Amino acid sequence: MSTLEMIEAAADRLRGHIRETPLLTSPFLDDLAGRRVLVKPECLQHTGSFKFRGAWSAISALNAQDRQRGVIAYSSGNHAQGVALAAARHGISSVIIMPSDAPQLKIDNTRALGGEVVLYDRANESREEIGESLATERGLTLIRPYDEPQVIAGQGTTGLELVRQAAEMGVKQGDVLVCCGGGGLTSGIALALEGHAPGLRARPCEPEGFDDVKRSLASGQIQANAETAGNICDAILTPQPGQITFPILSRLCGPGLSVTEEEAMRAMALAFLRLKIVLEPGGAVSLASALFRKEKIEGDAVIVVASGGNVDPEVFGKALEFLT
Amino acid sequence: MSTLEMIEAAADRLRGHIRETPLLTSPFLDDLAGRRVLVKPECLQHTGSFKFRGAWSAISALNAQDRQRGVIAYSSGNHAQGVALAAARHGISSVIIMPSDAPQLKIDNTRALGGEVVLYDRANESREEIGESLATERGLTLIRPYDEPQVIAGQGTTGLELVRQAAEMGVKQGDVLVCCGGGGLTSGIALALEGHAPGLRARPCEPEGFDDVKRSLASGQIQANAETAGNICDAILTPQPGQITFPILSRLCGPGLSVTEEEAMRAMALAFLRLKIVLEPGGAVSLASALFRKEKIEGDAVIVVASGGNVDPEVFGKALEFLT
Repeated sequence: MSTLEMIEAAADRLRGHIRETPLLTSPFLDDLAGRRVLVKPECLQHTGSFKFRGAWSAISALNAQDRQRGVIAYSSGNHAQGVALAAARHGISSVIIMPSDAPQLKIDNTRALGGEVVLYDRANESREEIGESLATERGLTLIRPYDEPQVIAGQGTTGLELVRQAAEMGVKQGDVLVCCGGGGLTSGIALALEGHAPGLRARPCEPEGFDDVKRSLASGQIQANAETAGNICDAILTPQPGQITFPILSRLCGPGLSVTEEEAMRAMALAFLRLKIVLEPGGAVSLASALFRKEKIEGDAVIVVASGGNVDPEVFGKALEFLT
Repeated sequence: MSTLEMIEAAADRLRGHIRETPLLTSPFLDDLAGRRVLVKPECLQHTGSFKFRGAWSAISALNAQDRQRGVIAYSSGNHAQGVALAAARHGISSVIIMPSDAPQLKIDNTRALGGEVVLYDRANESREEIGESLATERGLTLIRPYDEPQVIAGQGTTGLELVRQAAEMGVKQGDVLVCCGGGGLTSGIALALEGHAPGLRARPCEPEGFDDVKRSLASGQIQANAETAGNICDAILTPQPGQITFPILSRLCGPGLSVTEEEAMRAMALAFLRLKIVLEPGGAVSLASALFRKEKIEGDAVIVVASGGNVDPEVFGKALEFLT
């Protein structure tokens, strides 16, 4: 359903609206990883994560009439901000359903980016019921965070960029490590690599204990996480791989990798010190895998997709303590 | 002596060796500044600051015989790392003269990047004497940090990039705020703007109390700082504008701007929160000027050159406290 052609069409629609993030390097990281490390910092994307790509792709793919009525999304995190800004820049409204106990900063940010935030009580209300009622009443289109072909196509544009940028740096073989929640980014990149870089292979990276994708790939069947909360990598904690993303991941990806919370934090600290970028824990598991699972990686070079940087200053301060 | 043609020639020599840094934006910063803010994050440049550009330019401009003998620089900071890495990538040796009380991390970094670090005792030795003796003995070429035409030309390539990038974003008029120490970056950018963007005007930004360039521009004569230490913006504390840079600054720049240490730290915090980049205090005075001296800036858009990100985690942690 999601194909290379859809990714290329998404890239056309995204041109001039998303930021082409560079590929960063540091000789110090190369030394630690035992090979060249090329980092694609999607924390520098609009709204601080790759999610803006998928949101723009999905909204721009709607027919004019549907688009004009507006969109709706469930999210307390990066997808919320991506959808809110992409909708605002299309001149349409967005409704973002968030739990009432979400951090005030995320609620404020989503509103400031143009989203109409509707809060619900996690304990007593169903976000799906609230969302469906609003969607029906106002004719809103639901933008799913990952199990949505046009969202996957948008995230896949990250792959098109990195293939070209890595080739300019002489890298055409190796593993591409991707922070993986529901698998939208990883599956989109895997499709782009299949079409344009047969020597590159996508590999999902997850927190230990929340490695549903890794286990699903190993067993060949969708496996769920026991929990979906209780890890610092909150941005990439999802119940299980998507119905649309999993077959793509299964067909195209190498084995999954997983890292500890401390390793994710150490990777954040090294990204601060050596690349001068801000990563959130869930956006750093790919770099952590490159640095701390190097024996499980093949090739002279590794490409790392660092997916986001929306982290509270307190958590970032804790990561920096690993440098002292 | 430094001209647009020299900058364009430097850009040719730098192509494929330096990183083209993007122009970053955030609607939140636009709101704070009261106009569009376009940030060029040279913290993402190799070695964490723009200094790598000038170092590469100067080394690549040497004749083959001189280059082969190696280069020498006096610096405990960003220029040291830029020269060390640029020399190593040219396959030549570099000697970096640093005070023995420089932070161990900076000494280690400079060595790791390929520099031969020679330490001197600030109290009892003259770095110039040590340097001249080594230079004579080994035939090394001195790479000055700013008062050197090929260094200015290299820094000016930042200006060529931002002119093109800003035009793609529809910005051809306005102030270009540049963190300013000895004036190498500011004068190089000013020359690039003169040639390619007559609607853009460079303006040097400094820490209050160390605003030698601002005062020199106002008086039309070179003015010195009373002190060259004792401010958190250590990377841009210099005794006075250069003999080569000042006439360029005087001819081409708008009035200087100056900010407090606290404003520089607040700008670092906002760059963390809104752009996901790491700035050092001296690399943030331009953003601080855009945000906190907005009444002194003209136009609907402002371009900010954020010059470096080599900051200790402790100092960065203090900046983040402004967010809580």
